[in-house]
Amino acid sequence: MNKWLKPLEDCLEKGRVLTEVADLYSYSFDASFGEHLPEAVVQVKDKYEVARILKLANEYGVPVYPRGAGTCLSGGPLPVHGGIVLDLSKLPARIEVRPDDLTVTVSPSVRTGDINKEAEKYGLMYAPDPSSAHVATIGGNLAENSGGPRGLKYGVTKDHVLGLEVVTPEGELIRTGGQTIKNVTGYDLTKLIVGSEGTLAVIVEATLKLMPKPPAVRTMMVAFNEVRTAGEAISRTLTSGVLPSKLEFMDQACVVAVEQFQPIGLPVDAAAIILVELDGPEEALRVEQEKIEAIMKDMKAKDIIIPESDEEAAKLWHARKQVSPAIAKIKPTKVSEDATVPRSKIPDFMDRLQVIKEKYNLEVVAFGHAGDGNLHPNILCDQRDADEMKRAELAVEEMFEAAIELGGTLSGEHGIGTMKAPFMEMELGDVGVDMMRRIKQVWDPNNILNPGKIFAEKGQKLVLRND
Amino acid sequence: MNKWLKPLEDCLEKGRVLTEVADLYSYSFDASFGEHLPEAVVQVKDKYEVARILKLANEYGVPVYPRGAGTCLSGGPLPVHGGIVLDLSKLPARIEVRPDDLTVTVSPSVRTGDINKEAEKYGLMYAPDPSSAHVATIGGNLAENSGGPRGLKYGVTKDHVLGLEVVTPEGELIRTGGQTIKNVTGYDLTKLIVGSEGTLAVIVEATLKLMPKPPAVRTMMVAFNEVRTAGEAISRTLTSGVLPSKLEFMDQACVVAVEQFQPIGLPVDAAAIILVELDGPEEALRVEQEKIEAIMKDMKAKDIIIPESDEEAAKLWHARKQVSPAIAKIKPTKVSEDATVPRSKIPDFMDRLQVIKEKYNLEVVAFGHAGDGNLHPNILCDQRDADEMKRAELAVEEMFEAAIELGGTLSGEHGIGTMKAPFMEMELGDVGVDMMRRIKQVWDPNNILNPGKIFAEKGQKLVLRND
Repeated sequence: MNKWLKPLEDCLEKGRVLTEVADLYSYSFDASFGEHLPEAVVQVKDKYEVARILKLANEYGVPVYPRGAGTCLSGGPLPVHGGIVLDLSKLPARIEVRPDDLTVTVSPSVRTGDINKEAEKYGLMYAPDPSSAHVATIGGNLAENSGGPRGLKYGVTKDHVLGLEVVTPEGELIRTGGQTIKNVTGYDLTKLIVGSEGTLAVIVEATLKLMPKPPAVRTMMVAFNEVRTAGEAISRTLTSGVLPSKLEFMDQACVVAVEQFQPIGLPVDAAAIILVELDGPEEALRVEQEKIEAIMKDMKAKDIIIPESDEEAAKLWHARKQVSPAIAKIKPTKVSEDATVPRSKIPDFMDRLQVIKEKYNLEVVAFGHAGDGNLHPNILCDQRDADEMKRAELAVEEMFEAAIELGGTLSGEHGIGTMKAPFMEMELGDVGVDMMRRIKQVWDPNNILNPGKIFAEKGQKLVLRND
Repeated sequence: MNKWLKPLEDCLEKGRVLTEVADLYSYSFDASFGEHLPEAVVQVKDKYEVARILKLANEYGVPVYPRGAGTCLSGGPLPVHGGIVLDLSKLPARIEVRPDDLTVTVSPSVRTGDINKEAEKYGLMYAPDPSSAHVATIGGNLAENSGGPRGLKYGVTKDHVLGLEVVTPEGELIRTGGQTIKNVTGYDLTKLIVGSEGTLAVIVEATLKLMPKPPAVRTMMVAFNEVRTAGEAISRTLTSGVLPSKLEFMDQACVVAVEQFQPIGLPVDAAAIILVELDGPEEALRVEQEKIEAIMKDMKAKDIIIPESDEEAAKLWHARKQVSPAIAKIKPTKVSEDATVPRSKIPDFMDRLQVIKEKYNLEVVAFGHAGDGNLHPNILCDQRDADEMKRAELAVEEMFEAAIELGGTLSGEHGIGTMKAPFMEMELGDVGVDMMRRIKQVWDPNNILNPGKIFAEKGQKLVLRND
């Protein structure tokens, strides 16, 4: 038995440490690749338990892996070195809206979608809307700095965080930021911790910005005969003076997959479609919609569809959310990427994806938040086919190279985790990575908090298999 | 002579190191308090010089003080331990707009207002608008994470930075972030460095977000008979579903001072006025303006003035910008504070200011960005009156206490610098400050980059005198 297990049990109420193999298996995976058994799991009940566990783990040098709902696409919560999984999803759910301040304070276990539901009661909105908002926890969103379609107009999770309460790797409770919209008191630990993928601190509370819910919303679907034209239409829209709240892209393969999965009448003969959402005062939307229609006509769009009711618009957005499950039906393994390029480089990146797809003879479909340059190319493959997976690994590497050559980045919103750690220096250089690593080392001298993430270990390579 | 002076001269072209006393004096102050002579000044010409100077300074352990236009209100560029002032304002000015990406890349020497002028040529806007934008450099804005009236709707400097090129305290050039709207590749060094007040790295290039320039703008001025009612009207406006681009407050003393300085017909008999700016599509503004007028009438506003032309509106905003110079005429010394509270606490904070003013028998006027809880109480005093300055120091300390008790922060947008360093632990606690200090130590092991800022030195106290 591990020498830390008894002290761990002693520092909590009786029966709180799970060590049954069945339990450990439930915590061995996330929505990316790889299975890793932890040695123990604690479903923590309050922040003081988190502090006690981290103090003890720091003393014994045992790895601690914080976890929310496990929907991570980059391996964030995987217990790659065993140790303790810290399940934060069972913390008491707390959503405290302060309508006069336009803020909300939440516990990390709350589902992101529920924050928005609560805010709506006050005519307010929590802007970030990751596609997994109905299942993912805000704690995971904060750790990974999640994005979502509305990121185009409103920014990502980090842009909406005012303050945190966190436990440091040495088990100290501290507050960062606060409840004010502006705050320049010392270093911005809030924005350092959000997106640090659970490697610098465990978030036990967050205060988030809310904003007035836009009074009206309009949706348009535009179909194109050519992928590149769709990309160019996106660029034209973004430089027209109108800033849509969402601007999403789906290529033909995605459209077809959704129609086979849950038919709603999308144009399966189009090479690509884009979905636009405008929000704001009703009076403005009429004008903005006309402006975008004019652009789309000028770009020789095949079809411009304006839903006649909110229900019809909701169907289109539901279809967009179905892309991921729908394409997962095509082949057993789905490698979801999120390399991101400057907006103007979207058409070039689409061209590069086509070349990569042909070179490696792979099924690659693309969809995503094209409006902010954050496309999700997905390789559809079969884990049991070792040769195909090898080609997939090479293709992913080439996608990263393409994105970086075009002035982009490895990850727009999914995070580095285990998946992209081997490529960090490709983007950031040795010194860039070293400056990050210094922070990790000085905050977590015993390397106990989520070790094996972000920073590649010696010889680490991309592996898209679960063995 | 300092042992580092010769090597410094040797690593640059001849005649580049200024050591004449007249030159050193020009670099001994900023817009806050205190005069400190450096030992040498270099007006750097390119980023490689910055790197060479930092390498050398790191080797010899000599302090380096980066400086832009010197408009800092918290002592950021003051060479409190002598050493070298690194004047970045003479770097070649570069403003490269990429309209298709909605981004701009700039050198730190560029004036912030000039970035906006350049962006406007493409129908775009750089949102942050510190009141000093016509004189301050973007480098200083980045170091201090400057705010400004438009922060209410659009956020502060940090919210608009995508990537940086910086020189580390050890003289290494690295890039952080990039050119994409979304980026979660590793720790967010960009947002750590922006607002770190030149203590972690020297910024030599920045890529900033641009956005479509709002098609229309409307201004309203509303006068009130009571300060507290003005505060409540601000709260009501912010929870009405309308998000103004600016929502500024001026108390009677400020209004009177401006009228004495440059008369434009402001209502000097009002206890307070608020200035509102709405921006967006013309069609929406009509509706929003009516909504706000209704709120103001309901709050028994003394007067609601809608300027009849853009020129008249511009005059009102000019008057707002004149507050600082105008109140500086009242007494020789002006202590400008920027403690910030949650929006709903603005009326309470105003009450607390009144109590402090009476307790210490001081002239305190208040104006600022009330819409985001960032008020600027200014103590008007006379440095030659030691007793008054002592009372001012105590009053400032009590303002900080009040802000923190109300859930606020020491500084909303001016920074910590030398001025607020002694109060950091009041807000953040020992461990909170320690976690910041660890980053400083591991990035700058020889403590050469802007030492004496943010982190209080032993026994350091607030001093509002220049002796």
